[in-house]
Amino acid sequence: MKQPLAVGIDIGGTNTNFGIVDRRGNLLFSGRIPTRQHTEISFFIQELHAQLYPLIQQAVADGAEVKGIGVGVPNGNYFRGTIEFAPNLPWRGVVPLASLIQEAFILPTVLTNDANAAAIGEMTYGAARGMKDFIVITLGTGLGSGIVVNGQLVYGHDGFAGELGHVIVFPQGRLCGCGRRGCLETYVSATGIVRTMRELLHSQHTYSSLREVDPAAITAKMIADAVLQGDELAKQAFEFTGKILGQQLANFVAFSSPEAIILFGGLTQAGDLIFRPTIHYMENNLLEIYRNKIKVLPSELKESDAAILGASALVWEIKN
Amino acid sequence: MKQPLAVGIDIGGTNTNFGIVDRRGNLLFSGRIPTRQHTEISFFIQELHAQLYPLIQQAVADGAEVKGIGVGVPNGNYFRGTIEFAPNLPWRGVVPLASLIQEAFILPTVLTNDANAAAIGEMTYGAARGMKDFIVITLGTGLGSGIVVNGQLVYGHDGFAGELGHVIVFPQGRLCGCGRRGCLETYVSATGIVRTMRELLHSQHTYSSLREVDPAAITAKMIADAVLQGDELAKQAFEFTGKILGQQLANFVAFSSPEAIILFGGLTQAGDLIFRPTIHYMENNLLEIYRNKIKVLPSELKESDAAILGASALVWEIKN
Repeated sequence: MKQPLAVGIDIGGTNTNFGIVDRRGNLLFSGRIPTRQHTEISFFIQELHAQLYPLIQQAVADGAEVKGIGVGVPNGNYFRGTIEFAPNLPWRGVVPLASLIQEAFILPTVLTNDANAAAIGEMTYGAARGMKDFIVITLGTGLGSGIVVNGQLVYGHDGFAGELGHVIVFPQGRLCGCGRRGCLETYVSATGIVRTMRELLHSQHTYSSLREVDPAAITAKMIADAVLQGDELAKQAFEFTGKILGQQLANFVAFSSPEAIILFGGLTQAGDLIFRPTIHYMENNLLEIYRNKIKVLPSELKESDAAILGASALVWEIKN
Repeated sequence: MKQPLAVGIDIGGTNTNFGIVDRRGNLLFSGRIPTRQHTEISFFIQELHAQLYPLIQQAVADGAEVKGIGVGVPNGNYFRGTIEFAPNLPWRGVVPLASLIQEAFILPTVLTNDANAAAIGEMTYGAARGMKDFIVITLGTGLGSGIVVNGQLVYGHDGFAGELGHVIVFPQGRLCGCGRRGCLETYVSATGIVRTMRELLHSQHTYSSLREVDPAAITAKMIADAVLQGDELAKQAFEFTGKILGQQLANFVAFSSPEAIILFGGLTQAGDLIFRPTIHYMENNLLEIYRNKIKVLPSELKESDAAILGASALVWEIKN
């Protein structure tokens, strides 16, 4: 029998990464093209084909069977195979991306948003192997989420389920990119913790090494590094971020009663700095029946390949 | 072919109602026994059998086939067939109710909590017929919820999913029966709106006919009646209740992106008084992609029979 392989494509605002993955999550071939400079979707598809198709031909020549293409993309709609009104991508309106890729490559193509792809990736290759009920929270520039119930990704009626970054935690809170106020991702994300740090520097007089940095240049990584140097305000920023996240995780648990919550993405590299307060405040806020049984785990997907792996895992879900 | 029928049993703190229901949701036979006086579960099962078994025999004699028994009960666990630590029932600890009933009646028996039973009932016979993604919110003494995703009830990893009444909306808010503070049901429920009304009477000096009632004797029905008489404070109580509910529904939508949210139970009899502010504040708080497409509907199950119908509908879900 030929070895079954899946193509994963991760479309980001700046770059598009792609690769060919085996059933166990090994990345066998990979490549990258820029996203932003292709303001015409047809030129993007052309360059993608020029770079990716030779890899597929190579895999087939090596005796494999490429089963299909999975795409993870911001604002991706699984049901319609479209990208819809993605603020950080160069293409306006609704783009029928799955059918464009399918026509170019003549391979079954399935598409979803990047956080859903991460959830499928964790279930197939990562920390959620064997689990049927879990939530993946991606902590990057924003906060994304992929929810699995009964072993199936929750897409909802229109394909847009799982926008937990836009749960409102403070009705009059921070302004969000979505135009509303107080969304979870304005507090819990790489940009959220930076906003918290700036507020702390402004409202308190405690010494902090970050006072020497241009406030506009502060990053989540700098805050984590400062904590390791014993910086008290930076520690408060992580504590506050974990508190808001933990409180909201306790609410999410009341919805779907998951076996585990998996944290994924840049901010989780701070390890205990974010996990400890998150778990503490989640447990403190859980309804009694849920206490001491919800695991909060780091992703087991290798950070640099995770998005490709997640996208490729969609292919194994295609029903024949 | 024999007509297939299902038994539904609704166990409440005071009474247990039961009936035999056809595939279309017609209640053919029904009866009731008291719950509270049976402090021994075995005596409860005995009386249930004494009253219900003759109805089953009658149905069989009439040429029907009784397929099984569905039970809706507070703190019911679908996976284990148990009642667990139910504060409002006379039986302590964990009670293996499904197996006790199955042994007594020699019929397949399945059990879930009352709000989940309502959700299955709406999907089978009511407002959610044909829907695969919806949420039922039951507004009674507390706030219960049953969530359906991909046509399946969400039980979660341990069978306790869907406790939306215990989402914390104000971290330092009202004391809840669960021991925590600020749970949604302390604001949005028959008892929640009464607490709101008492607070309004205390904090404001506006005239209200409810000032003439002993504060401890105020009911949700009295508040609804007062609104119809033009009572300004009573109107504020409904407005506030709908606001809190609407804000939280907007968050729930971000989780599962349902086609509809169905409101069920006593407080919904106030009709527009509760639906209008709920819909208004939900829409005002929804993320843009969800706006103007989530239906908020009243239950279509006849109030007095709804719990029996919901419990009976569990039987049709039993896999052979």
